[in-house]
Amino acid sequence: MINKLISKIKETNAPIVVGLDPMMKFIPSQIKEAAFKEFGETLEGAAEAIWQYNKGLVDAIYDLVPAVKPQIAMYEQFGIPGMIAFKKTVDYCKEKDLVVIGDIKRGDIGSTSEAYAVGHLGKVQVGSKSYYGFDEDFATVNPYLGSDGVNPFIKVCKEEKKGLFILVKTSNPSSGEFQDRLIDGRPLYEIVGEKVAQWGADCMGDEYSYIGAVVGATYPEMGKVLRKVMPKSYILVPGYGAQGGKGADLVHFFNEDGLGAIVNSSRGIIAAYQQEKYAQLGEAAYADAARAAVLDMREDIAQALSSRA
Amino acid sequence: MINKLISKIKETNAPIVVGLDPMMKFIPSQIKEAAFKEFGETLEGAAEAIWQYNKGLVDAIYDLVPAVKPQIAMYEQFGIPGMIAFKKTVDYCKEKDLVVIGDIKRGDIGSTSEAYAVGHLGKVQVGSKSYYGFDEDFATVNPYLGSDGVNPFIKVCKEEKKGLFILVKTSNPSSGEFQDRLIDGRPLYEIVGEKVAQWGADCMGDEYSYIGAVVGATYPEMGKVLRKVMPKSYILVPGYGAQGGKGADLVHFFNEDGLGAIVNSSRGIIAAYQQEKYAQLGEAAYADAARAAVLDMREDIAQALSSRA
Repeated sequence: MINKLISKIKETNAPIVVGLDPMMKFIPSQIKEAAFKEFGETLEGAAEAIWQYNKGLVDAIYDLVPAVKPQIAMYEQFGIPGMIAFKKTVDYCKEKDLVVIGDIKRGDIGSTSEAYAVGHLGKVQVGSKSYYGFDEDFATVNPYLGSDGVNPFIKVCKEEKKGLFILVKTSNPSSGEFQDRLIDGRPLYEIVGEKVAQWGADCMGDEYSYIGAVVGATYPEMGKVLRKVMPKSYILVPGYGAQGGKGADLVHFFNEDGLGAIVNSSRGIIAAYQQEKYAQLGEAAYADAARAAVLDMREDIAQALSSRA
Repeated sequence: MINKLISKIKETNAPIVVGLDPMMKFIPSQIKEAAFKEFGETLEGAAEAIWQYNKGLVDAIYDLVPAVKPQIAMYEQFGIPGMIAFKKTVDYCKEKDLVVIGDIKRGDIGSTSEAYAVGHLGKVQVGSKSYYGFDEDFATVNPYLGSDGVNPFIKVCKEEKKGLFILVKTSNPSSGEFQDRLIDGRPLYEIVGEKVAQWGADCMGDEYSYIGAVVGATYPEMGKVLRKVMPKSYILVPGYGAQGGKGADLVHFFNEDGLGAIVNSSRGIIAAYQQEKYAQLGEAAYADAARAAVLDMREDIAQALSSRA
């Protein structure tokens, strides 16, 4: 799957992943009204609104980007109907040949991590048969529990030719509380990054490992160091746009080959119609605004990368 | 909810939480066969088997223990039908007046953590209405992302009078890879423990904070230190039984008042019928075996605590 992701990045010239984080306040009122008319102001109504909103977005951007990243929390908050909308979204994106990164940030130990891995990336055994549960292509994983937590995910990735992005340095302001603390003179995120490189060494695709890392765009200097610590790991970079990361900050996350990083934008794209820049398109044209925002982001990254060269 | 948990612990004289981690290999063949007969060897069949198995367990133990801890991964692996079985289990346990600790180990940042918190502990807004998604009483949370990740959970706990158990030192062999690394001469788990104490200070129930911690029974010496670092935090202690923790190891997790800790056992109870000790009861009497195992565990802990005094 890392090979597919990279070949799609080259093809689209867009190292971009669109975060499908459908907050209710992003969904155009027209879509919400139609969903509530059919299902009432219920969890089912919310799930229908999410699904219709996502479908519109995916139809508008699937030819421009290699991948999407649905944030499962935004679905899980609506209980079972929300989880059904998550699954429908994953399936639809795969139909459109998008690589799906499940932003699930799971992590536990032993058989429990195995259950998460099986449920999100692999097949679960039921008697003599086996089934995919959610069937994303990549998943994000929290490393706090150590190798016992990560190895069961790696095992499933090997079997299924899928991949991981492991949290190393997150984009939020307080990520330093634990991640930046010094251990033998080096910050914890570097120690975790080294582990990612080790885990990944045994999991190589053609050019890069299928065990990648998450490093926030909001910490470009740390990205520069981590790029060297994990030369063969793809870096998923959140924090671009709404969280303050800029195109120029991103160059440090890429290798000399112009590869090695994929940048996420969520609300900057899916709620682009709410920005002044795209507001003239109107709420009903939210998907056109998303498409325009993807094109602008692609240009921003391309310029930043070419001015580095 | 922490007050309810403590009063139920006193009432039952059992600082015990039963982990409802229904692996297929634990479920008696009779239950699986009936479920597969009705739904086939499908995800729905697996979910039905899990639900019937859990119902039998809960009916057998609900008067003996204060709380249960369903491990969501064991349900999530069966996709949507699995999540429905999780929700049915949570609801049924609450009907039986058990405190439900959702072992979800979620953790993200800002609005995403808020979505998890709302989905598992609080109410989500849909238009003019609001709904509980999964509605557990407590949730386990991963601290790697720092305060930004934890505060949204705390906010919902305050509103809903619910609580958290934050991962501090996990029970698995490799938990030391990151958690034991020294920062200014002290291990990371201690730094995290201090944070838990800080977060918890502002969230007091009558005797204890509703912001607790997870510390594995397999590390009793670390438990002793952490008990002092977080005197007002309840400690959820996994790792008893199957993972190797013994009654005598547990005393360090309790305060002088005999409170402050609740010990989890999962397979040691729910699959007790597979142990030699309870095997004579037979597979069909798995719930009776679970009840016997709870009584034995209660005795083991009581003896350990009284021989300390």
